[in-house]
Amino acid sequence: MTEKKTIMDYDTVALDDEKNALVIIDQTKLPYSTEILELTDLKKIWDAIYLLQVRGAPAIGVAAAIGIYLEARKIGAEESEFEAFYEKFTRAKEYLDSARPTAVNLSWALNRMEQVVLTNKARRVAEIVKCLHDEAVEIRNEDIRVCRAMGEHGLTLIKDGDGILTHCNAGKLAAVKYGTATAPLYVGQEKGYSFKVFADETRPLLQGARLTAYELQESGLDVTLICDNMSNMVMGNGWVNAIFVGCDRVAANGDVANKIGTSMVSIAAKRHGIPFYVCAPTATIDMCTPTGREIRIEQRKPEEVTEMWYERRMAPAGVKVYNPAFDVTDNDLITGIVTEFGIARPPYRDSLKEIFALKDKAKQNK
Amino acid sequence: MTEKKTIMDYDTVALDDEKNALVIIDQTKLPYSTEILELTDLKKIWDAIYLLQVRGAPAIGVAAAIGIYLEARKIGAEESEFEAFYEKFTRAKEYLDSARPTAVNLSWALNRMEQVVLTNKARRVAEIVKCLHDEAVEIRNEDIRVCRAMGEHGLTLIKDGDGILTHCNAGKLAAVKYGTATAPLYVGQEKGYSFKVFADETRPLLQGARLTAYELQESGLDVTLICDNMSNMVMGNGWVNAIFVGCDRVAANGDVANKIGTSMVSIAAKRHGIPFYVCAPTATIDMCTPTGREIRIEQRKPEEVTEMWYERRMAPAGVKVYNPAFDVTDNDLITGIVTEFGIARPPYRDSLKEIFALKDKAKQNK
Repeated sequence: MTEKKTIMDYDTVALDDEKNALVIIDQTKLPYSTEILELTDLKKIWDAIYLLQVRGAPAIGVAAAIGIYLEARKIGAEESEFEAFYEKFTRAKEYLDSARPTAVNLSWALNRMEQVVLTNKARRVAEIVKCLHDEAVEIRNEDIRVCRAMGEHGLTLIKDGDGILTHCNAGKLAAVKYGTATAPLYVGQEKGYSFKVFADETRPLLQGARLTAYELQESGLDVTLICDNMSNMVMGNGWVNAIFVGCDRVAANGDVANKIGTSMVSIAAKRHGIPFYVCAPTATIDMCTPTGREIRIEQRKPEEVTEMWYERRMAPAGVKVYNPAFDVTDNDLITGIVTEFGIARPPYRDSLKEIFALKDKAKQNK
Repeated sequence: MTEKKTIMDYDTVALDDEKNALVIIDQTKLPYSTEILELTDLKKIWDAIYLLQVRGAPAIGVAAAIGIYLEARKIGAEESEFEAFYEKFTRAKEYLDSARPTAVNLSWALNRMEQVVLTNKARRVAEIVKCLHDEAVEIRNEDIRVCRAMGEHGLTLIKDGDGILTHCNAGKLAAVKYGTATAPLYVGQEKGYSFKVFADETRPLLQGARLTAYELQESGLDVTLICDNMSNMVMGNGWVNAIFVGCDRVAANGDVANKIGTSMVSIAAKRHGIPFYVCAPTATIDMCTPTGREIRIEQRKPEEVTEMWYERRMAPAGVKVYNPAFDVTDNDLITGIVTEFGIARPPYRDSLKEIFALKDKAKQNK
């Protein structure tokens, strides 16, 4: 007798070394069906990122690392000379990097892979490809460790029985395991805590309804789905003790780009005096971007808004639509930024630097 | 050659004296098709209000007035004695009143119709029915005059070229003509002004996408559709000069119950220093309800959230849902309440009383 498989039985992003494929759960098909994609072609991997078959800043980073390794493997089979290999590698890297502009993890992972190429340039191309394989695997493993560490730190901010609100999906499905915003909940669950979670549905693509509500329910957490415009009322009802969200890019001053709608949740939270926490692996913190104003916000197709998951028009034909995928939450609205090295508090210009100092120290101690 | 008919060719709510029918546009079918319903049965009229085939506080009031008149007409054909007539009338009135709890216009219109019965109790039942007919017609005509007057007052708050944001549908489709929140826009349009309007789609039932975007576009206004969670970003972009919303009930202290999500818009507006105006005919102001806390908020079915207009599940089966139809916007977030007798400003306990004093004066001058 086989039990019904759910997404909790699969990894969100994985590398299959036998098939030389990037293996992902197709997140555009959830929650109706669990379809596993095995991608070997660079264009297909670009599409998977662009079309949100794989999404969530950390998961995009891991998928890009595996994707560029798979492409490097192919290039390495054709080009044994470093210059030719590196030129094609760079072109593939730039191509993948263009799939989505806001999440910094995409370029972070690709740059890290390029560093491996450059550091090992004296070696044979076949060896470089082997190093890229190991780096991609390490980026993936690191994601699990980092999310777990964020979960431990985040858990110190809440207590058993708390009401937690989250926006979009910064869960297991946005990373490899644990997720970012959900990590405190999953780690808490392992320790026997229970929470009452409210999941914003997150228009237009409904990642909260389709993914967060799904993965929390499958994991046995108590979750209630609400529309994005209901969170202020839920907070006003006294049902929320803390808010946890993920993010796509943190600027050096602590401004945070995350899924469209995050900023409205933070403004309402401030009015109610509810702490608003952003879970951000250091890979998501971009010290080269001074403030949120410099973060490029991806604009997406009007049909995402007007055609209800591409099935039926819910708005008049030809209506103008503004459809930004992300917004910026100002640093004064953020109570703390939870990283794998601890929790940064305002002023963020200083505290984020301290987090990176801890990261450097941890590297040296390795 | 006949031109394609749009909703602008029909009245939102009307009485057909030949067919003795309440005639409405079925708003659950918009924007795909314009279906006109002719309702003669009290149960069907109750359903139409409950199912949102007719919705919007003023339109509900007018529909209820016409509905109770049509029922009184039937009762009058059976009962010629006042006591028997009045008993059945009261039962029908209480039944209609139960269709939706939050909009005060429903009970306001029904109470006004009951007053007509009581004032004329010395007359023959057939004469009372005639008076009810005239009162229903007057309530409908009044709605047009009142909306027009609100439009004139509201227009003094904005200027040609302004960016205006609105939530839900407080348009022509929520009243008989002009609408409430849209009245300043339509009156301005008549005077040659142009505006750049942003319409929140308004989950879960998408009245903004289906109705507001539709009626504004059909009327030739410049409208851009956004998801509810995007309004803070649109405000942050500097695109909004003022916000106009309708309402379902104003408490004596100026707290306002309106479509779920309104309160989040008001909180964001305050942060951006953008004026937030509520358009409220005096029929919507309930001086017997001291504050927003005493307003009963209608809870609706989870399927509205999980099944995307009842067609396809967008959330895992069995997920818990919280689905309040309205929320309360605190009076400190409201810049002004636009009525047909002028604009009330904080403190509302005083200014709303002044509005009713103006109303009484206008009645005496008639």
